Parts: sequence; structure tokens; C-alpha cells
Amino acid sequence: MTRLSPAHPRYRSLRTRAGLARAAEGGLVAPEGLMAHGRGEAFDYFLGERTIPSAHRAIQAAAQWLANARHPVVSVNGNVAALASREVAALARSRPGLWVEVNLFHRSPARARAVAASLRAAGVRPVLGVVPTARLPGLPSDRALVDRRGILVADVCLVPLEDGDRAEALQAMGKRVISIDLNPLSRTSQCADIPIVDELTRTLARLAAEVRAARRAAVPGRFPPFRRRQALADALQAMREGLRAAARRPRPRSRPGGASPPRRPGTARRSRRRR
Amino acid sequence: MTRLSPAHPRYRSLRTRAGLARAAEGGLVAPEGLMAHGRGEAFDYFLGERTIPSAHRAIQAAAQWLANARHPVVSVNGNVAALASREVAALARSRPGLWVEVNLFHRSPARARAVAASLRAAGVRPVLGVVPTARLPGLPSDRALVDRRGILVADVCLVPLEDGDRAEALQAMGKRVISIDLNPLSRTSQCADIPIVDELTRTLARLAAEVRAARRAAVPGRFPPFRRRQALADALQAMREGLRAAARRPRPRSRPGGASPPRRPGTARRSRRRR
Repeated sequence: MTRLSPAHPRYRSLRTRAGLARAAEGGLVAPEGLMAHGRGEAFDYFLGERTIPSAHRAIQAAAQWLANARHPVVSVNGNVAALASREVAALARSRPGLWVEVNLFHRSPARARAVAASLRAAGVRPVLGVVPTARLPGLPSDRALVDRRGILVADVCLVPLEDGDRAEALQAMGKRVISIDLNPLSRTSQCADIPIVDELTRTLARLAAEVRAARRAAVPGRFPPFRRRQALADALQAMREGLRAAARRPRPRSRPGGASPPRRPGTARRSRRRR
Repeated sequence: MTRLSPAHPRYRSLRTRAGLARAAEGGLVAPEGLMAHGRGEAFDYFLGERTIPSAHRAIQAAAQWLANARHPVVSVNGNVAALASREVAALARSRPGLWVEVNLFHRSPARARAVAASLRAAGVRPVLGVVPTARLPGLPSDRALVDRRGILVADVCLVPLEDGDRAEALQAMGKRVISIDLNPLSRTSQCADIPIVDELTRTLARLAAEVRAARRAAVPGRFPPFRRRQALADALQAMREGLRAAARRPRPRSRPGGASPPRRPGTARRSRRRR
């Protein structure tokens, strides 16, 4: 395994990767989940690895909807469990009546149990969806499985890192969908009623605090409209700015250890210009 | 496993992901390699999944350097073997004397053998680096391992999907480094003498053809200068344009199957406006 130094400028990101690699080896995270995490990392890099103001507004709107929902459910897959079981537990504590359901794209009984174990270890009770008891219409069989006490009857679904087909199926059932997805162009972000374009753990920490605040003024069944197209445009604009900023500060060429080791004869360069 | 339909708009990308997932399960690709692939996918999406003109110029320059090198070596890791063993074999055929070396960041004897087996199955002979015989200075032990007939004595190294530390170590040894990396901001791209910012299989196919052409006018030891900073700036500019174009065409909300299923009572929406 890679040895990680806390002094490394990418320490946090590398530690997260190492944790996900272990989670994949243990069966909690699917190989496709690792690739999805990599895609998210690239988008977050462009965002500047921060919660942009527009995403913060989306989180506030989501908190209101979750506080006002009659039957809110948060869906948890392998990546969410590996990255943020504790944050999911804190969110559930912030909103009594928020159900937590295991919801896997690459479902196997073993992975469902691993996700549930991770959630329970973080203090989540109960964990729905381990043994599915219903199906969503319009999806292939293995992706349609849900819990009849949870997603099937939810009015507001919080779907972090969700697959596009399933987010659309929830939409089509008339449910209000809140997504957490770093790709503003993904089908999940494009179809969500409130697309939160932000990194999962950053979002969940803020969301729990906002939900606690929103509960003080809760009006069951009231869902103020959210300007979803604007939120997506804001995220894309922030990423464009991130790319422009990155282009303006090209990294200097560093040499390991700072020293310039002697050139090997036969590989020495003549008139090597840096352009 | 996911069932893939060739009619799916992302079929090629999904098929590649499924292949990499299998390769990871078989030990050829490291979990970290799966995440790296995901990052590359996001960058390629911004590029428009095409070889931009600037990358084509980089490929032509790389072909000249490989044709004129005295001891060129191409470095192959698990991702490269899983994605492009055939393309590596074709490149090696296009340039007699181009050595192919197994070069792993997450090295294990089993993974080294798996990479070599994949290359040999594609027709590569010989495959260097399976049992390392030398070390690069300035790197932690497990990442320093190389073949003394290959990378150690190379004058030009083609490093597809290379780790930043190692690319810098090769640089520091005075070798000419040609990278293939979709992230123009990675340390590998930033330190390479010729950074090719393009997808691996697209690059390798073009590179083999360009090397054949360059060999007709080869001048051993001649390495025309390449404007590396311009190439990196071009790639970032292309990605910014890709983001702008994507922002202009938001995807319509689709409903699975095209039909609008009946709303469930209790989850029906009132005055739901799309914004």
C-alpha cells in the first residue's frame, strides 16, 4: 500500500482514495463506484474543492424540504456508506422521521449487508432496504428493488451519488428528488428538483445543521420552489472559472528532493529549453 | 453485472468501465487505477472525447522523438495493459527497438505477471520489468523498481497514465519524458517534455501511424523542441470551451420509457414549475 504523509498537499484526497480502495476490497464499494469517485474528484477539483454559494443555497432549500416532508428518505449506496456513514447518521439524528434506506445499483446481498453494517456501526436505526420488499416501475429488475416502508412511499428522496436511471424513475413516480452529485451534467443532477452540486461529506455536514434550523419553522407539506436550472448553470460557471484560474498558475516543474541529480552520460540533454 | 445495450449513448464508455471492473477483479488493475480512470473520464468529457488539434501536434512531435531516440522505452501499468495492450503491441511493431516495460505504481509480483501476460497475449516480445533489476534514484523503494535494460538506460520514455513522482524522477535523471494523460494539471503533464493530453487508445492508434511516417526521415539523436506550455494551455482552453458548450445545451428531462406514469396519491405535486 501507498504510504501517506499528512504533509502531502493532496493528503485528504489520497486518504479518501485509500479508504475507498480498502472498502472495495472488502466488498462494500463496487469497482464502478471507484470509477465514479474518480469522476467526482475531477469535478470537485474544478470547483475548487469548496461548497460554492449556489450549492449552499441548494442545501438550505433541501433542508426546508426535508424538514417539511411527510415521509423523507435518504438513499445510501456503497460509496455513500464508505465515505459518509457517520454524516448520514448525524443527518438522521437531525430529523426524526428521516428514514435511511440501502439502495444499490450493483446489488448483491453481501454488499447490501455491508452497507447496512456500516450504517449501523455509525448508529443508524433502523436501516431499510437490506431485504427489498418492493419494486420501482420502469427499471430493470435488479435496480428496481426498494423497501416498501421507505423509498416506495417517500414524498421527498435525498439521493446522494445516485444513478441517472433511478433518479429519473423516482421523478417519474412523482417524488421530489434532492440529489448530491458533483457532475452538474449528469442525468441525476439534470433531473433532480434540487440538485446539490457539491462533495458528499461537505454537503451532509452542512445539511444536518440546516435541517435543524429549518425544523424550527417547519410547515408540513410545504415545498418552496427551487431554481434548479440556475443552480446547475452556477456550478458550470464555477467550474469554468476554476479551469481559468488553474490555467493562470501553471505549476513550476519540481524536482524530487529539490536537488538536480547528475545527468547520466548518454542521456544528457543539449540546448534543452523550457517552453 | 450491468447489462449493456450498444444503443446506449454512453455504450463505449460503459463497456470500457465494465472491462476495467473485470480487470480489477482479476488483479490486473489496482483499485486506485479505477479511480484514476474515473478522473480521466471527466477530463475527456470536457475535451469532447476527441483528439484536439494541439494534442495531434504533440503526438506528431512524440513520434519524431520516438523515431529518433537511441533507446526508447514505453512504460506499461495495469490500466494501460487493461485498456490498450493491443495498441501497445501495434506501437512496438511500428518502431523496432522500442522496448516495452512493466512499470507499476502499486506493484505486486502477481500484478506484474498479469500485466506481462496481457502484453504477451497481444504479441509484445520481450516484456521487460516483470522482475525488476534496478532502481530509480529519489523514489520510495516499491515505486523505484525498473529494468536495467529498459527505463534505467532509456533516453526517451513514453509514460502513459504515469504517476507524478515517477515522471519527475525520470525527468530528474535527464530522460526525455512523453506523457499521455487527460489531466493537463497533473504533475505528470506539468513535468513532461511532450505532454499529450488525450485519451490513451486514441493517442496510441495515431502515434503508431505517426511513428511509421517519422521513421522515414529519422535522424538519430535529434529531438526538435516542443512547446509544452502552449500544449497544456490549449488543452485547458479546449476544456473550458467544452464546459461552456455543455452549459448551453442543458439536457431535457427525460422520463423512463417516455411515458408519464400516474402520480401516486399522497406524492402528487401541486403547482410544480420547472425552472
